[in-house]
Amino acid sequence: MRFGTVDGRGVVVRDETFLDLARATDDSLPHDPLALLARWDDVVAAEPTLDWSVARRLAPGSLGAPVPAPRQVFAIALNYRPHAAEAGWDPPGQPLVFTKFPSCVVGPDVDVTLPEGHVDWEIEVVAVVGRGGYRIPREEAWDALAGITVGQDLSERVQQLAGKPPQFSLAKSHPGFGPIGPLVVTPGELPDRDAIGFASFLDDEPLQSGSTADLIFPVDDLVARLSEVCRLLPGDLIFTGTPEGVGNRRTPPRFLQPGETLVSRVDGVGEIVQRFR
Amino acid sequence: MRFGTVDGRGVVVRDETFLDLARATDDSLPHDPLALLARWDDVVAAEPTLDWSVARRLAPGSLGAPVPAPRQVFAIALNYRPHAAEAGWDPPGQPLVFTKFPSCVVGPDVDVTLPEGHVDWEIEVVAVVGRGGYRIPREEAWDALAGITVGQDLSERVQQLAGKPPQFSLAKSHPGFGPIGPLVVTPGELPDRDAIGFASFLDDEPLQSGSTADLIFPVDDLVARLSEVCRLLPGDLIFTGTPEGVGNRRTPPRFLQPGETLVSRVDGVGEIVQRFR
Repeated sequence: MRFGTVDGRGVVVRDETFLDLARATDDSLPHDPLALLARWDDVVAAEPTLDWSVARRLAPGSLGAPVPAPRQVFAIALNYRPHAAEAGWDPPGQPLVFTKFPSCVVGPDVDVTLPEGHVDWEIEVVAVVGRGGYRIPREEAWDALAGITVGQDLSERVQQLAGKPPQFSLAKSHPGFGPIGPLVVTPGELPDRDAIGFASFLDDEPLQSGSTADLIFPVDDLVARLSEVCRLLPGDLIFTGTPEGVGNRRTPPRFLQPGETLVSRVDGVGEIVQRFR
Repeated sequence: MRFGTVDGRGVVVRDETFLDLARATDDSLPHDPLALLARWDDVVAAEPTLDWSVARRLAPGSLGAPVPAPRQVFAIALNYRPHAAEAGWDPPGQPLVFTKFPSCVVGPDVDVTLPEGHVDWEIEVVAVVGRGGYRIPREEAWDALAGITVGQDLSERVQQLAGKPPQFSLAKSHPGFGPIGPLVVTPGELPDRDAIGFASFLDDEPLQSGSTADLIFPVDDLVARLSEVCRLLPGDLIFTGTPEGVGNRRTPPRFLQPGETLVSRVDGVGEIVQRFR
C-alpha cells in the first residue's frame, strides 16, 4: 500500500490515481493523517476492500507531506561508517539521536529558500511510525511502523559546526529543511525492507547513493533502541542517517546554490524534489 | 494571569479556585490547551471579564501539564557559565539547542520510574510560546510568549555521555523526564521577568538555585535566536537551561534514588514535585 496526503487528507495511491480514505469508507476511517496512522491496522485491513472505480487522477504536485505535522522527529547522526569517517568521528557505539524540529517538515515537491550560511544535502531513508509503542522488541519493530518514505536532512553547516559540541537540531530545522514524501510505502511492497537502495542528484549530477543494508543501526534496531527510551507515537518520523558524499566534506566544499534542483530517490518508494532560491 | 489544565482542558487559576475557559465563555474560547495558546490574545482579553463567582475549588493534584502535547520542545545546554564550567565546556557563543522529545512531558506532580543508569536533576525556567512566529525581533519576544512555568530537564547521564559527541536529546527523554507546571504565569505577573529566581530541593536538601538574570542567552534573546531559524508554534516549550549544582559533577557524584522526592520552585510561579521509584 502507498499512503500519502492530498489537501491535508489521508489518501491511498495506486498507479496515477488516489482514493481519499475517509470518503472511500463513508467516514469509517478518519481523514486526518495522524489519526489514520494511529489506526494503521484498520487502514491496512480496509485497503483491499476499497472501490478503485471511483479513484481520482493524481495531479502533479498535489501530494503534501505524508505526515504534515509529526509529533516527534528522530534523526540519527553518523549511521553509515564512511560518512562518520568523512565527518571526522568514530562510528558511534549507540545511535546518536537529534531532532529536526517539526516546523521544518514540508512536502515532496517544494521551493526552499536558502538561509545565510552553507546549506548541505543529506539524503535519508525515513521510517514512518504507525502503531508505535514503548519498548518494542526488535523482532516486532517492522509491525510498529507504517512504512518507508524519502527524506532530506538539509543542514546549514556554519551554525551546525560553529561550537563545541556541534549543534545538530537547530541548524537542520530551517523552514523546508525536512522534506518528506511522496508516499509512505508499506514494508511488504519494498523489494527488500532490510536493503533499501537510494540515490540523490543535483541538476542530474549524482551526489550520494547507498543502501540501508549498510546502516550501522538498521531500521528495526533503531525502532527497538529509540522505543527503549521514548514511546513512539503514530506519525513519528525516524530519519535513519545519510551515507558519505555530503558537500562540506568535498574538496573543495560544495553547497546548495539558488537555482539548483535536488532530486532524492528511494527504490520502490519514489522521489522528492527541492528547488532552491 | 495563571493558566493551566484540569482533565486536559484549559483553565485559569486564582487563589485556590479555577475556571474552565471554554465553559466560562460559553464556548467562545476552545477547551484544548494548544488551541487556547493559539488564541492567546483572546484569552488575555477575556480573562478580566470572567465571572469568578462560579469558580470551582482546585483539588490537590488536579493540575496536569499546562501544555500536555507540545509540538516542539527547545532545550538549551550550557546556558549558565558556572554550569558550562562544571560540565567541562567553554561557554557557548550561540545557544546550543537540543530537544526533549514531547512524549516525555508530564504534569507537575507525578511519580517517575527511574530507568537503568544514573538519573540527574536540572531545574529549568521554561518559557511557553503563545502567539509565536518566525523571525521575532528581540524587543517583541515577550509578546510572542504566553508566560513562564517550572520544568525539570531530568537526564540519564550514562547514555548521554557514552559517546563522542555526547547525546543530549534521547537520554533526556525517558517517560516523565520533562515535568512542567503547575501553571503558566504571564510575564506581567512576575516580580521581574528578566530576573526570575528559582531553587530545587531533594527531600528538603537544597540542590540548585539561581536567577535567569545570569543566563548567557536570556529568554527574549532565545526567542529571537530560535525564531530566526524555526517558526515558534503556540504551546512550544523553551527549557532555558540549568545552573551549576547537577549531581554528576559533585564529588562524589550523586544521582536520584528510589524513594526520593524532588521539589523545584520558580518565584512567582509555584513548584513541581516528582517522586522517584
